[in-house]
Amino acid sequence: MDSYITLDIGGTNIRCALFLDGQDEPVDHRKIDTVAQGQTPIMRVISVIKEIWPANHEVKGICAAVPGSVNIKTGTVLLAPNITGWENIKFADILKDEFDVPVFVNNDARLAAIGEWKKGAGKGHENLLYFTISTGLGGGAIVHNRVLEGDLGIATESGHVTLDDKGPLCGCGKYGHLEAFSAGTGIESFVKTQISLGVDSILKTQADIHASEIASAAREGDALATAAYKRAGYYLGIGIANYLHIFNPSCVIFGGGVTQSSDLWMAEFNKSLEDHLLNPMYLENLEIKMAELGDNVGLVGANEYLKELLNRNS
Amino acid sequence: MDSYITLDIGGTNIRCALFLDGQDEPVDHRKIDTVAQGQTPIMRVISVIKEIWPANHEVKGICAAVPGSVNIKTGTVLLAPNITGWENIKFADILKDEFDVPVFVNNDARLAAIGEWKKGAGKGHENLLYFTISTGLGGGAIVHNRVLEGDLGIATESGHVTLDDKGPLCGCGKYGHLEAFSAGTGIESFVKTQISLGVDSILKTQADIHASEIASAAREGDALATAAYKRAGYYLGIGIANYLHIFNPSCVIFGGGVTQSSDLWMAEFNKSLEDHLLNPMYLENLEIKMAELGDNVGLVGANEYLKELLNRNS
Repeated sequence: MDSYITLDIGGTNIRCALFLDGQDEPVDHRKIDTVAQGQTPIMRVISVIKEIWPANHEVKGICAAVPGSVNIKTGTVLLAPNITGWENIKFADILKDEFDVPVFVNNDARLAAIGEWKKGAGKGHENLLYFTISTGLGGGAIVHNRVLEGDLGIATESGHVTLDDKGPLCGCGKYGHLEAFSAGTGIESFVKTQISLGVDSILKTQADIHASEIASAAREGDALATAAYKRAGYYLGIGIANYLHIFNPSCVIFGGGVTQSSDLWMAEFNKSLEDHLLNPMYLENLEIKMAELGDNVGLVGANEYLKELLNRNS
Repeated sequence: MDSYITLDIGGTNIRCALFLDGQDEPVDHRKIDTVAQGQTPIMRVISVIKEIWPANHEVKGICAAVPGSVNIKTGTVLLAPNITGWENIKFADILKDEFDVPVFVNNDARLAAIGEWKKGAGKGHENLLYFTISTGLGGGAIVHNRVLEGDLGIATESGHVTLDDKGPLCGCGKYGHLEAFSAGTGIESFVKTQISLGVDSILKTQADIHASEIASAAREGDALATAAYKRAGYYLGIGIANYLHIFNPSCVIFGGGVTQSSDLWMAEFNKSLEDHLLNPMYLENLEIKMAELGDNVGLVGANEYLKELLNRNS
């Protein structure tokens, strides 16, 4: 039977799955550490693929989701900041030489968007936006039944849009990006800055403050922690209003760790979204949903993308 | 021979063109006032179509460009603020009843984007953004060889994205939109506000101040007028950086009246664009160009769009 191998590569783990033709769930699945003594991450990728390679099925192709920018024309990982040494890595060429099958590589949030679109919360929508809000904020867009990739493949850097050019520093080095307001690091920076300015909080004695601890503090009634999540929701509302004006989708999906605290930001988000829309008609046919596929979203999305590309090129 | 009728409807004039199959230039062209005693704008539209209707050619369809929001699924003009009474006008239905041919209607900036893509500055590009900067700021996007319309057809409201939620009032009633910084009215508002705050300018004795007069003053060395255009360029740079991160196009085209003053904002725009980009690779394959089609852009774009839709539906 035809089979497909997909990978979801993160800073901590590499996950690898084997899919058989016509099946939505992987028949095999491996998870290894990204970093191991004496091996580069690309050697780890090759070894996990060899491990999962099926004896009784033909492998039609390989597709990897990576947390960074990819030139999809050349299959080069341009930059993946969380994976040591991954700058201008000719990922597809290296794997093609090793395995002699078609190899594709793409941004993980974009492949997750495809996963949710084909098999998750976005099924049936022709125009869809997906946002993953965790440490950072990434995303993907489906435009008229086709994933938006851009000329090189570096489109939908969805967190890196300026909402206030005098706003807080973003992880990318620029100021006032959506990510710097509404992702985990933005929420943490706000709390730390406010504490350093003398604002009271039950978190003030803590050495390092993580977004999940801020969420706990907010649920215990801490005013600063509550304000931090409300602020994240307010700016997310501005950002999503902009995106509705640009894309007019029928579905917006939120995934990632910060969605687990959506009780702390959803009301402020909804109010801000309505306040910042040109016209309520942008909400008329719109579903706003939480992601459904969980940890497998990248692997499933990569499988769907791989099959579509093989089909398109055949 | 097969023929196509297109219209470009503005607050002052309605322009109407007749195209023959396989020809890029119209074989007939009419221009009438939008407003006339005892006639609604839709009656004017019908009369100019009757006037241009060819005796010797079969009309395959009609397509109109309107300055407003259109539900492309129903052919309804949702709102065109500059055309009296045009709110929820069932444009396509009215014209279909009258002429018994397929009728399409779309936003004028989007059809202009198609015109520049198919026949103007954007030929050959698969991913392209078009911005028309005049009194307001509109736009269109080509994504992987397909115009971005959105679920209802109200995508690419390109001027109505927040760059600073505490910024100046936009024509739409919201604050800090790209249009409020970089379009004609934004440039004018800035100058008027600064003069009211006591800033000196050769324009300060003038009752009403138009963007073209500010451009003249800037060319005479007026510091406030110069600053107004530089500021427009600075915020345009932020806006276009956002759009490059979202779309990663290979071509950006600027049209509209404010491009005639590009000498006053282009240097500041370029610097701001570079400063606000995540990575210079967004500029690698990018052409930034001025529009080429002039006043006919909407009529030409409507003709290309009409032929594509008739083809898609046949």
